[in-house]
Amino acid sequence: MIEQLLRHPEIKLTSLLAKTDVGKPVSDFFPHLRGFCDQVVEDSSPERIGQDADVVIFSTPDRVGMAYAPQLVGSGVKMIDYSGDFRFGSIADYQEYARRHPGTAGREHASPDLIGKAVYGVPELYRERLRGASLVGNPGCFAVAMILALAPAVKAGLVDISSIIVDGKTGSSGAGKKPGPVHHYPERNENVTPYRIASHQHNVEVVQTLSRLAGGQVTLTFVPHVVPATRGILCTCYASFSPGATLAQAREAYAAFYSGEPFVRLMPSSVIPTLKSVYTSNFCDIGLAADESAGKLIVISAIDNLVKGQAGVALQNINLMLGLPETMGLDRAPTYP
Amino acid sequence: MIEQLLRHPEIKLTSLLAKTDVGKPVSDFFPHLRGFCDQVVEDSSPERIGQDADVVIFSTPDRVGMAYAPQLVGSGVKMIDYSGDFRFGSIADYQEYARRHPGTAGREHASPDLIGKAVYGVPELYRERLRGASLVGNPGCFAVAMILALAPAVKAGLVDISSIIVDGKTGSSGAGKKPGPVHHYPERNENVTPYRIASHQHNVEVVQTLSRLAGGQVTLTFVPHVVPATRGILCTCYASFSPGATLAQAREAYAAFYSGEPFVRLMPSSVIPTLKSVYTSNFCDIGLAADESAGKLIVISAIDNLVKGQAGVALQNINLMLGLPETMGLDRAPTYP
Amino acid sequence: MIEQLLRHPEIKLTSLLAKTDVGKPVSDFFPHLRGFCDQVVEDSSPERIGQDADVVIFSTPDRVGMAYAPQLVGSGVKMIDYSGDFRFGSIADYQEYARRHPGTAGREHASPDLIGKAVYGVPELYRERLRGASLVGNPGCFAVAMILALAPAVKAGLVDISSIIVDGKTGSSGAGKKPGPVHHYPERNENVTPYRIASHQHNVEVVQTLSRLAGGQVTLTFVPHVVPATRGILCTCYASFSPGATLAQAREAYAAFYSGEPFVRLMPSSVIPTLKSVYTSNFCDIGLAADESAGKLIVISAIDNLVKGQAGVALQNINLMLGLPETMGLDRAPTYP
Amino acid sequence: MIEQLLRHPEIKLTSLLAKTDVGKPVSDFFPHLRGFCDQVVEDSSPERIGQDADVVIFSTPDRVGMAYAPQLVGSGVKMIDYSGDFRFGSIADYQEYARRHPGTAGREHASPDLIGKAVYGVPELYRERLRGASLVGNPGCFAVAMILALAPAVKAGLVDISSIIVDGKTGSSGAGKKPGPVHHYPERNENVTPYRIASHQHNVEVVQTLSRLAGGQVTLTFVPHVVPATRGILCTCYASFSPGATLAQAREAYAAFYSGEPFVRLMPSSVIPTLKSVYTSNFCDIGLAADESAGKLIVISAIDNLVKGQAGVALQNINLMLGLPETMGLDRAPTYP
Repeated sequence: MIEQLLRHPEIKLTSLLAKTDVGKPVSDFFPHLRGFCDQVVEDSSPERIGQDADVVIFSTPDRVGMAYAPQLVGSGVKMIDYSGDFRFGSIADYQEYARRHPGTAGREHASPDLIGKAVYGVPELYRERLRGASLVGNPGCFAVAMILALAPAVKAGLVDISSIIVDGKTGSSGAGKKPGPVHHYPERNENVTPYRIASHQHNVEVVQTLSRLAGGQVTLTFVPHVVPATRGILCTCYASFSPGATLAQAREAYAAFYSGEPFVRLMPSSVIPTLKSVYTSNFCDIGLAADESAGKLIVISAIDNLVKGQAGVALQNINLMLGLPETMGLDRAPTYP
Repeated sequence: MIEQLLRHPEIKLTSLLAKTDVGKPVSDFFPHLRGFCDQVVEDSSPERIGQDADVVIFSTPDRVGMAYAPQLVGSGVKMIDYSGDFRFGSIADYQEYARRHPGTAGREHASPDLIGKAVYGVPELYRERLRGASLVGNPGCFAVAMILALAPAVKAGLVDISSIIVDGKTGSSGAGKKPGPVHHYPERNENVTPYRIASHQHNVEVVQTLSRLAGGQVTLTFVPHVVPATRGILCTCYASFSPGATLAQAREAYAAFYSGEPFVRLMPSSVIPTLKSVYTSNFCDIGLAADESAGKLIVISAIDNLVKGQAGVALQNINLMLGLPETMGLDRAPTYP
Repeated sequence: MIEQLLRHPEIKLTSLLAKTDVGKPVSDFFPHLRGFCDQVVEDSSPERIGQDADVVIFSTPDRVGMAYAPQLVGSGVKMIDYSGDFRFGSIADYQEYARRHPGTAGREHASPDLIGKAVYGVPELYRERLRGASLVGNPGCFAVAMILALAPAVKAGLVDISSIIVDGKTGSSGAGKKPGPVHHYPERNENVTPYRIASHQHNVEVVQTLSRLAGGQVTLTFVPHVVPATRGILCTCYASFSPGATLAQAREAYAAFYSGEPFVRLMPSSVIPTLKSVYTSNFCDIGLAADESAGKLIVISAIDNLVKGQAGVALQNINLMLGLPETMGLDRAPTYP
Repeated sequence: MIEQLLRHPEIKLTSLLAKTDVGKPVSDFFPHLRGFCDQVVEDSSPERIGQDADVVIFSTPDRVGMAYAPQLVGSGVKMIDYSGDFRFGSIADYQEYARRHPGTAGREHASPDLIGKAVYGVPELYRERLRGASLVGNPGCFAVAMILALAPAVKAGLVDISSIIVDGKTGSSGAGKKPGPVHHYPERNENVTPYRIASHQHNVEVVQTLSRLAGGQVTLTFVPHVVPATRGILCTCYASFSPGATLAQAREAYAAFYSGEPFVRLMPSSVIPTLKSVYTSNFCDIGLAADESAGKLIVISAIDNLVKGQAGVALQNINLMLGLPETMGLDRAPTYP
């Protein structure tokens, strides 16, 4: 996130608050920032949070943001939260999510009154509500790639909403900076690891969002896989065409849906999105294909999980919250190779 | 293949025949073989092929093996072919394959009389016909992973055979030793590349094989992806359960189907196959799961594409062709890490 | 290079000229550029070159730039060349380089009159001569890392200039976009490949530059290695301390030499440069250590070979050539992770 | 190590003893072993160790083996230790090592009486002493690659023994199965990390061994680097030729020194060792080159750190300890690619 903020002409990073590494310059543990951000990490005491800021970003585990939200929002400080705390439009949806999330274990929401006030941070769907919003739940990385891949087809009624399958591939950085056995290099290199089969917590926010667009209950089978890459998410989505629906219609629907969108690029039929085509950028690239004989629409979406899947979409949301141009600080080409 | 043959106690490599690198020791371009196989490559003139061998292995492009097969098989030399030339039980199936394969371009089979005589080299399905066979079509690497993943479910009628989706992930080595843009390191590293979407040529042999087991026409949507790995194929297979069918039934059916199979390991429910779990070995590891709410069976299969997907299964087939113990030269644990 | 130019506020890309891919938008073969640079590649006919530009960048093989230089420079168009054509201060040095370079094979320089006019594009050494220069030879990627690692020690007389050893590690992207056997993924992954042992062509420009600083003939043994990475060069340099010289003196000399340099970061003793610490940026990070018992100074330098090792240093040079602020368009933090 | 033992026709694994994972089958945390070794891990109580074995392998941290050695050796059980406990011929050398090793922190040896009895497990140097030995200190992985690279030159007096520099490159697996920040995939991929600059603990056993061969005190500067690979060590060694010594003499000396050695392959001048050329095998490949103008001999050695650098050389040593053919269970070609 710090890199994104540094490139933004209108945003100034006032404080870095944390519970670990307090007293150290952030460039001590992120050496690439040396000379760009040598700001010292301060202890995140409750009274310190929001003291000197118009916007507070909570890049914290589930249940931290919900504890601070009432006071911050009450005092007029805007807040964006990276966890699942504020992604859900109803308590029931939140509970379904909380049940699945290993770190939340089904506990109840601590600030249920704010659930209705929070906006789910997918600008392509909720842009108007995000403008000036005070509380935003930044979406899950896989959720961004899945929602952008499927929203136009689902909204236009082109696919059977009980038939959707998403096969996800992600690099290791989505799991964070903390070492663990699945992301230990000798285990990760030359490996592909399916995990949380049909039980990933991001599924809930996707189903909720797509169901609202479809006007009916979406069923979605999602199997994520870790591949040997640092950055990137690629989702391969399969759905049965509705009777009479065609790839050409899908292409039209997607072109219309994403017309004018600054960060969604619909690929021509000859080009298939890959992780590389969006590397380090805020783009979501989308490709469409069909298996005619099986009557399936196939949608491929690719994002950089750390940008469009996290810090980039957060900045896009913050721009909207603050009334700044939506692309400010984000309009850069991907890195290649 | 040479490594596999070197480890086999009853097989002697008599000749290496090729059109390139003639006159050089094979260890000049495969330095790891120095001291193990320094045999000089000889020109593959027609009269030389099969001259000093009981079995000839054709690791050649499509349409080479079919040109030599009549003479070899006629003179009593056994033959195993790595291309698509002899994988199909009917001319119609071959033509469908040939239409899809970029290097074959729909041309007709040159030895149609031998199609009925050839055995498709999947020992788990055709073991009895492979014993003593004179002509074997070694299966495609993706086909091995897909067939072994789906055969028990399809045969037992546990899934809707019009609903099957296979999302495949493969390393780069399946594309061979010849450099190309997709497998150039800067393009391949940190990338995932979907290709031949719903149009991969291996689909045909899988559909033919599964349809025979099902007693009806299987429809199968297959999207392969290249991931940043050298070796390995992992297939994630999705199919709708037949009415009333359950994961428990599937588990039983798979256990029965693969009971006693030397190279298929059905994982307990707590273990998910990965590329690493079969690395450098002749195993196919299979894991079963379900998305209960969507009514889907999920099967994950993993193989080393260069062993169970090519040279290992070839040696397993050769053992059967020659009447040797099926596991001879192959019974090794995977390499880790 | 295109990415670098796109980010520069004062530079406009007028034409892309080439011999291949003529008539295609550049975003067809560099999909990440879609929407950022869809400019069509034009045929590089002699009369077209320089027609609509103040500066022409030759990202061409050796001996191309030297053929066009006289006309361009004569007509007042500035030129920067990426090959070895204009890196050398004397014909003798050029000949030594040409003898080593596989693609040049010892042929004579085609525009020897311009050798004295050309400036070697290392801003940390030749900033004053680069300001307003009309002809610049952009340095080799390894040369940048080696020269910046060793210049302060050599200039200050802290090391025995006959004792220098440089062990270089590079990613694959330095070899270009064209696939070849050394950079084929299955060969490159899990591998380290030493090459051109003590015979790399970049050695010549390094020795020439360091000898000038030392006031005596430098001897330098250089062994490059390709490692499994896309981007980055790390050089580990070893030299015997001059009698009485110490690590503390070296630290002072480096700090003084690079004081105020915008793109060289001298690391504190607790931090060792890595490829990651400069990834995608124009920085050269330098770390100093010593083997006291062996009397050796050890210098480690890291750059991104595609930025500080090529397009970034080129843009830094162009800024100087055009009288623009030196850091314009380049002042970005590295990407992490 | 288990894989190595499984392939050995005369060795039976009787017990797996540990302090963690007690009660679990080893194939639960090493899934690749399923069906090959499902042996249950037992608690390593002192009285259990050696109870049912002719040889006990200590794959334990420093200072564990030295605590058990007196009793085991006293009772006639042979012992091989993977740590630094028994690699040193004198207490002084051990103390120098212990001072450098982070986990040992300079403490005194607990069984100093056994130091003289232990044999350093480098078969190419100490084969005769290893035959029938009861206590062997298995060498460090980097030490194997360095000693085999330099022994012939040092012994023959071809190089100045005060001039040696070794630049080492290693994969991540040498650091073990436990995740840590340096080997976390997002940190390790696309990175090269120098570490323990001129202070690695393996240096001590190398210097001791080479000094004994040279008949004088060797000085050796060693800088190890972690590269993005799972397996493999490549050492690039530089030394000044003694007056009059030549590359041709070196080639002769190495050929003579390693004549008949089963696991050292001296490469012809046209072939440079790489990690791939020894992958998964017990070979050490060695290449020789020179920088004539600088008067340097350059030796490149490559091993698989988990085989010739640990379990393979251990098995080679065990074969010698038990009077079995030295190559038994080890004579396999490397894996490629």
